[in-house]
Amino acid sequence: MRKQKPVGESFVRMTELVLPNDTNTLNNLMGGRMMHLMDVAAAISAQRHSNRIVVTASVDNVSFREGIRLGNVVTLEAKVTRSFSSSMEVHIDVWAEDIPSGTKVKSNEAFFTFVAVDQSGRPIDVPEAVAETPEEISLYEGALRRRQLRLVLAGRMKPQEATELKAFLALE
Amino acid sequence: MRKQKPVGESFVRMTELVLPNDTNTLNNLMGGRMMHLMDVAAAISAQRHSNRIVVTASVDNVSFREGIRLGNVVTLEAKVTRSFSSSMEVHIDVWAEDIPSGTKVKSNEAFFTFVAVDQSGRPIDVPEAVAETPEEISLYEGALRRRQLRLVLAGRMKPQEATELKAFLALE
Amino acid sequence: MRKQKPVGESFVRMTELVLPNDTNTLNNLMGGRMMHLMDVAAAISAQRHSNRIVVTASVDNVSFREGIRLGNVVTLEAKVTRSFSSSMEVHIDVWAEDIPSGTKVKSNEAFFTFVAVDQSGRPIDVPEAVAETPEEISLYEGALRRRQLRLVLAGRMKPQEATELKAFLALE
Amino acid sequence: MRKQKPVGESFVRMTELVLPNDTNTLNNLMGGRMMHLMDVAAAISAQRHSNRIVVTASVDNVSFREGIRLGNVVTLEAKVTRSFSSSMEVHIDVWAEDIPSGTKVKSNEAFFTFVAVDQSGRPIDVPEAVAETPEEISLYEGALRRRQLRLVLAGRMKPQEATELKAFLALE
Amino acid sequence: MRKQKPVGESFVRMTELVLPNDTNTLNNLMGGRMMHLMDVAAAISAQRHSNRIVVTASVDNVSFREGIRLGNVVTLEAKVTRSFSSSMEVHIDVWAEDIPSGTKVKSNEAFFTFVAVDQSGRPIDVPEAVAETPEEISLYEGALRRRQLRLVLAGRMKPQEATELKAFLALE
Amino acid sequence: MRKQKPVGESFVRMTELVLPNDTNTLNNLMGGRMMHLMDVAAAISAQRHSNRIVVTASVDNVSFREGIRLGNVVTLEAKVTRSFSSSMEVHIDVWAEDIPSGTKVKSNEAFFTFVAVDQSGRPIDVPEAVAETPEEISLYEGALRRRQLRLVLAGRMKPQEATELKAFLALE
Repeated sequence: MRKQKPVGESFVRMTELVLPNDTNTLNNLMGGRMMHLMDVAAAISAQRHSNRIVVTASVDNVSFREGIRLGNVVTLEAKVTRSFSSSMEVHIDVWAEDIPSGTKVKSNEAFFTFVAVDQSGRPIDVPEAVAETPEEISLYEGALRRRQLRLVLAGRMKPQEATELKAFLALE
Repeated sequence: MRKQKPVGESFVRMTELVLPNDTNTLNNLMGGRMMHLMDVAAAISAQRHSNRIVVTASVDNVSFREGIRLGNVVTLEAKVTRSFSSSMEVHIDVWAEDIPSGTKVKSNEAFFTFVAVDQSGRPIDVPEAVAETPEEISLYEGALRRRQLRLVLAGRMKPQEATELKAFLALE
Repeated sequence: MRKQKPVGESFVRMTELVLPNDTNTLNNLMGGRMMHLMDVAAAISAQRHSNRIVVTASVDNVSFREGIRLGNVVTLEAKVTRSFSSSMEVHIDVWAEDIPSGTKVKSNEAFFTFVAVDQSGRPIDVPEAVAETPEEISLYEGALRRRQLRLVLAGRMKPQEATELKAFLALE
Repeated sequence: MRKQKPVGESFVRMTELVLPNDTNTLNNLMGGRMMHLMDVAAAISAQRHSNRIVVTASVDNVSFREGIRLGNVVTLEAKVTRSFSSSMEVHIDVWAEDIPSGTKVKSNEAFFTFVAVDQSGRPIDVPEAVAETPEEISLYEGALRRRQLRLVLAGRMKPQEATELKAFLALE
Repeated sequence: MRKQKPVGESFVRMTELVLPNDTNTLNNLMGGRMMHLMDVAAAISAQRHSNRIVVTASVDNVSFREGIRLGNVVTLEAKVTRSFSSSMEVHIDVWAEDIPSGTKVKSNEAFFTFVAVDQSGRPIDVPEAVAETPEEISLYEGALRRRQLRLVLAGRMKPQEATELKAFLALE
Repeated sequence: MRKQKPVGESFVRMTELVLPNDTNTLNNLMGGRMMHLMDVAAAISAQRHSNRIVVTASVDNVSFREGIRLGNVVTLEAKVTRSFSSSMEVHIDVWAEDIPSGTKVKSNEAFFTFVAVDQSGRPIDVPEAVAETPEEISLYEGALRRRQLRLVLAGRMKPQEATELKAFLALE
């Protein structure tokens, strides 16, 4: 039987300071730099769940709000939501904090998917992810429809087979 | 009347060498670094279309294949597909090339959305994007349903109003 | 009266992946890179306590063990221990984790001191730090003798006046 | 007989955004950073011609104009001009573009020479470079005198033997 | 008998330009970046003395003055003071120079300790360090009490055994 | 009368460790990275002579030998050779050192030219450079023919007017 592991054990908190090279000419954090931070935080979370080397498999739709400024502190919190054979979906929350002015805002929320691999890069099974809190259970339950959306967008699943996705889009 | 501009004028080709710091412990390009390159290429394309400073607004679902190695050459080609008031969707194609072995593979394809802003960061209208070749027209036509998917995923449009998206998902 | 603030509010956890450029020719994390990470984590903690821009004033004796490897995950936890007018002492704990092999070791422990400054760089008073847990109280109580050691080493206090330090060194 | 290859196949276009760390205190792109970009673009071009790992052998005289600013887009175009046994000369054109103001100026032009090497770093022959367009032919023809100048400057050819160079300098 | 080597042979001078990414939001060099530079300069000095790969073992108390600005030139001078079996203490002096205004100030002074290791990372003996000038002799003589302070702070020596340290602190 | 300044006052020694990101797939220092280091060292030297902000104007022919390896120590020594109104020629010597194996080789020698500018970027006169040692005098005397070569190569001087250059090329 497949090993089980609570998703809470994959929790990662990462804190970063926005430095000059991270910013555009408006002194805002560049979107690509933000995605790089998200990828590192989420990869560490997937490593914690699988105790394996992991590679990024996909990133879901990510939205950016303006306003993360030079000198701001960015906090990322990542946790595995669910696993499928060798792949894991990771949820990431991002906050931007301007400490001198005392403001802290939720700036992003995203889902990254990773595949666990062995030393030669071949996919390898990971433990089953066990959701425990209400929030973890809600993320666990949504993971299937997000997976269907990824497969449909990648042309690897027919839309009519994506039953969870259809329910999510309230199309039936 | 709104200014018109052929999408071909926004074309950008970027070529990068994969250096040690871009790679994970398997010597593969990290996903977050790839997204950073895509963001820079796409931002330059959106700048070319709008002649404005631009900020990343969203990134659509991106898939990664393994296998971009240390020392590989990565080529990114970006072009605006369509504009909506102050926002522009940009399409990016990515190839990975191992020159000594003579292999070149398509590694990614993605859509990024940018908003043009003035010096104080306020959104500002951009020219209408005019598609000319068959490929440009196909990307232009798909832009509306991708926009609806983004709005639905962000909770800013009701699924039942996303008529283009429903057609895409072959749900009707 | 001076504002009071629990030290728990200054807690920062930072998680970093050791990348190729962070390592020496033995593939170990370089000491200078580690101190850079410590400085960033501790500065964010001091910012959280003071709601001010902070500048590094001093670093106490830091010891390094070998063995933080390329691909390891480094976790830093920082918290203010005590404040003195415009300066704050921050305690940092560092762990190194080799996730595939499941090992996690405490690698360093250090004290950094920061000064809060206004926009023109002049020192400015910070809230009093209130220790609450037994560990916080123990760190709070040691802060005075560490401060005396810094002042003696910098030639700004006579050893015979460093009463707390003498007690620490069990010299009386 | 030696393999032949059109120089057009070695064409590389690289596009870069000038970021804060690339600039000096006047917010202009530093000369050394520009040469680094040129080296990468030219190396990829030489790799494309030779399908080999390449190492920089020499850089000809390079002139810089002021005025590439933070936030500017730099476009580099590189193409092999001619090959000599294991070495290749590469021509690079550089443009600087301030997109919001709509200006684009030619900022540099340079010649880099690379040597193709095998995995143990030993020089290895490369295909003959075949010039086809009038511009390619003109660059091909000048390659010999630039090579003679390099050899004379390096003390590896006597000036009186540098017949092509003398003609170029109109000294005879 | 152990090999002897004058400390003068380990002298290293390093010169660096403060670039945007090295600075905080006040445009001052960050403390962590400074320690990184110190570590590199001191490691090269320890390599010169030992002709070995070296790893950072500890850093003594370091004080920072404010005021190293973006665009300043930082000069670091490092020299081994004394060796103990496989470890070497290195002394570092740092100056900050604002060349346009013609000011140059001593900004820091620090001691780093390194251990020489073989290719598998095991400690290996280094030559005895021979002090020759009065300044070198003074640094050599202080090395023992600084070593005792490090051992006491690390809990590896009892304060009552630290005879040199007691003398330094004038506690007896 | 124009201020005079000994060239010895512009002397700069820079020491750098070759880190992973500086290297190509053969683990050798990349040519572009080397030119970046040369540019920084030479710029600091020109700043020391002029007490001004300086911008890179040109780089003379630079040759590279293979073999600067990951972990090597690179030493650069730069000194102004001569000044012309607002421009200064700087000579740079580079050594590569493999400390564990005890080898140190001269790897490069180059001439960079800088222009001193005021805060708005306009050229401004610099002190006359006074050569004192035999080596400085020899570099001073060669500066004129190197300047003529630069002007001829840039199409800003007719070859027949380049009297010093002709003598150097032994063409007369």
